[in-house]
Amino acid sequence: MYRYALKIEYHGEPFHGWQRQNDVPSVQGVIEAALAKIEPRDHNIAAAGRTDKGVHATAQVAHCDMERDWTPFRLSEALNYHMKPHPVAIVDCVQVDDTFHARFSAQERRYLFRILMRRAPATFQAGLVWNVKKPLDLDAMREGASHLLGQHDFTTFRSTICQSMTPVKTVDRLDMNLVDTPAGPEVHFDVRARSFLHNQVRSFVGTLERVGAGSLRPDDVKTMLEARDRQACGPVSPPHGLYLSHVGYPVDPFAG
Amino acid sequence: MYRYALKIEYHGEPFHGWQRQNDVPSVQGVIEAALAKIEPRDHNIAAAGRTDKGVHATAQVAHCDMERDWTPFRLSEALNYHMKPHPVAIVDCVQVDDTFHARFSAQERRYLFRILMRRAPATFQAGLVWNVKKPLDLDAMREGASHLLGQHDFTTFRSTICQSMTPVKTVDRLDMNLVDTPAGPEVHFDVRARSFLHNQVRSFVGTLERVGAGSLRPDDVKTMLEARDRQACGPVSPPHGLYLSHVGYPVDPFAG
Repeated sequence: MYRYALKIEYHGEPFHGWQRQNDVPSVQGVIEAALAKIEPRDHNIAAAGRTDKGVHATAQVAHCDMERDWTPFRLSEALNYHMKPHPVAIVDCVQVDDTFHARFSAQERRYLFRILMRRAPATFQAGLVWNVKKPLDLDAMREGASHLLGQHDFTTFRSTICQSMTPVKTVDRLDMNLVDTPAGPEVHFDVRARSFLHNQVRSFVGTLERVGAGSLRPDDVKTMLEARDRQACGPVSPPHGLYLSHVGYPVDPFAG
Repeated sequence: MYRYALKIEYHGEPFHGWQRQNDVPSVQGVIEAALAKIEPRDHNIAAAGRTDKGVHATAQVAHCDMERDWTPFRLSEALNYHMKPHPVAIVDCVQVDDTFHARFSAQERRYLFRILMRRAPATFQAGLVWNVKKPLDLDAMREGASHLLGQHDFTTFRSTICQSMTPVKTVDRLDMNLVDTPAGPEVHFDVRARSFLHNQVRSFVGTLERVGAGSLRPDDVKTMLEARDRQACGPVSPPHGLYLSHVGYPVDPFAG
């Protein structure tokens, strides 16, 4: 068998998340159906991040095993052809050796979250940003976010259905940048960790948005974290501002 | 009556263009229906650019006349509320005097056209760019475009159903910029004139794309222009990369 690493971009809206499920559309299901057009049999691909319903990706990574020694160009062209008209695209494809595993070899996941701050409803950006009506106080949000950096028990910021063995994770980065766009100012969150709990990024963003709006103080984030209680969390942000934006490996398979 | 200038953003896909027509959705129709919710009667608004089916706008300008002395904030809020869920937004609104006419006072129209150059199909940008599979030669396109600058008889680049009195127009700017985006490199055309013929920008872009791809030479554009013959034109680009991006007035009503 020949193994390929796939870099995948998708619009999350039509999908019930990455993971294949019976009777509902999933990104994994779309890609596996395209693989079955190319090599007719059951396929079961593994991905670095099992994104939730409605969450996007600019650079999801998965791997697949093929019987034929496809050139990466041919394989990605064939997949993109067979995935039409779903909003999923293979944007890079490389052959890797059997020791590469898209999920278990990953050392870092990065997520981007976009908040568009403007009163007028989003048109072009609808479904791609969380549209908040009032400007947010980024300094307060950054102060609040500082309490979430490093290793903590993140029970407060974890979905009750999270299947992770432990609520202890290490957040390596939680930055916010103000970005001017033609549609108005956006806050871009850049969140990085080896791995995340279920709904962790959306729980961070929803809570920090309340800090930016002034309904929570930055120090409240510390109190909430230390409560280790899901009930203490702020609102969970909607999924459609969230993007899996990078997966880090010991050696970047796409660097060549 | 009180007159208001409206700056309007819209996604062109669901609409059969700006202009109100029977039985098909139009941007003008959506805005006039919202106006009728606010002041129940027939409304007839005028816009600077009557964009075609599928064409977008980031900054269309129209004006409306109201019986009540609305604050601009209240009027735009009410319109945005009543236009939901159509992808049309009032992004700016100001009261102007009766001498302002969105169409007849306009001195300049600018259009943006976006070409995304990448093999993988567009996902997030689908419907917002013209996706061409191969890189284009921008130097050749710029050389071709140079023949189109200034005052000419643009019969070649004019739809046969164009209703303009004359095919003679003056193109003040026809620039191409390479813009790096997360989805890949884009060519952004910036085209400016006092006014345009029907399909003029899309005829320019479709022809110059062929120059960039190498199937036409830059000098062919000169020959085509001088033919003054619609049959000599290159292909007309699709509408979904085109945006009405600016309307210029002697005094910018939105500058305040």
